[in-house]
Amino acid sequence: MTTTTLSQQLDFITEIDKLKNVARKTRHLNGTTAENDAEHSWHLAMMALILQEHANQPVNILKVLKMVLIHDIVEIDSGDIFLFDTVRNHDNTENELKAAERIFGLLPAPQKEEFIALWQEFEAAETPEAQFAKAIDRYAPVLINSQNDGGAWREFDISEQLVIEKNQRIQQGSTTLWSIAKKQIQQAFQRVQL
Amino acid sequence: MTTTTLSQQLDFITEIDKLKNVARKTRHLNGTTAENDAEHSWHLAMMALILQEHANQPVNILKVLKMVLIHDIVEIDSGDIFLFDTVRNHDNTENELKAAERIFGLLPAPQKEEFIALWQEFEAAETPEAQFAKAIDRYAPVLINSQNDGGAWREFDISEQLVIEKNQRIQQGSTTLWSIAKKQIQQAFQRVQL
Repeated sequence: MTTTTLSQQLDFITEIDKLKNVARKTRHLNGTTAENDAEHSWHLAMMALILQEHANQPVNILKVLKMVLIHDIVEIDSGDIFLFDTVRNHDNTENELKAAERIFGLLPAPQKEEFIALWQEFEAAETPEAQFAKAIDRYAPVLINSQNDGGAWREFDISEQLVIEKNQRIQQGSTTLWSIAKKQIQQAFQRVQL
Repeated sequence: MTTTTLSQQLDFITEIDKLKNVARKTRHLNGTTAENDAEHSWHLAMMALILQEHANQPVNILKVLKMVLIHDIVEIDSGDIFLFDTVRNHDNTENELKAAERIFGLLPAPQKEEFIALWQEFEAAETPEAQFAKAIDRYAPVLINSQNDGGAWREFDISEQLVIEKNQRIQQGSTTLWSIAKKQIQQAFQRVQL
């Protein structure tokens, strides 16, 4: 370890404090505050730990945790994009790649390479870990909005059909979670007559 | 897996959304907003991943991650206690134990037992994992306050001597981190003439 290594690591840790200021469309369950990316990432890490038995395939949980902890860090530069955004595409944009290079680039090379590779694996959604991580990333707002009078779906006038359509990829990571998610979505739309 | 298992797990995941509303004394680095426990726990998880090479003893990083992700969950009931609080003692209060029983008690028994044991191991600060997790828990506000015009130290009129005294336990988990922390504290107090 050199002083430079530690100093690069602390620069990165300082920089990512900004994730606490990247607002999402989903609100806290108490309904008053917009959730931010840092809180959301923590909630996903807890979900990964607790729900791992429901992944379609066995997963390396440490790898899943790393993925969910870092998956939104690029949004410090590129901003959060709503799942239902009809203009901007969330996945793998050039802006996000630039952001990954800049932010993870603050780290010593081996850590930079590990995190960029993990982020790309997450985005590609092909391995069991990435598919499970993606599933809980989609499921988290379902859990919140369905208990929150429709939450962001209601606020942004999203139809039940579109919510189902955009979230059915949850089943790639966990058919169990998709099965409960679908029920929660349907019940929420019935209850509040969105 | 029974329906009951999943339903208990989702009740817990719903309940801990409240951690996003437990305010700490430390502010975001941009200075405007009080940090909350969920964001703070995410930041610690990132620090654990990045700084693990600086632990005094080799650590099981998955265990450290679990500890820092859950370490503040009891504060949903008991509230955050400032490190420099002169009335209330932070460690192992009866209130916190009651909170652990209630909140982790929402989970299926094996997960409840695992998390309570992890939280108690963290609080006892005797294993290498707990000592490293405690070290980064103390270091995180040092990193923020020292770059933030003194931050919460200035706001609550805490002396340099007390900051050093209360944080020197960082060295139990990482002498490297304590060495940089001490410098950062001294420089911050010099710079802003607190």
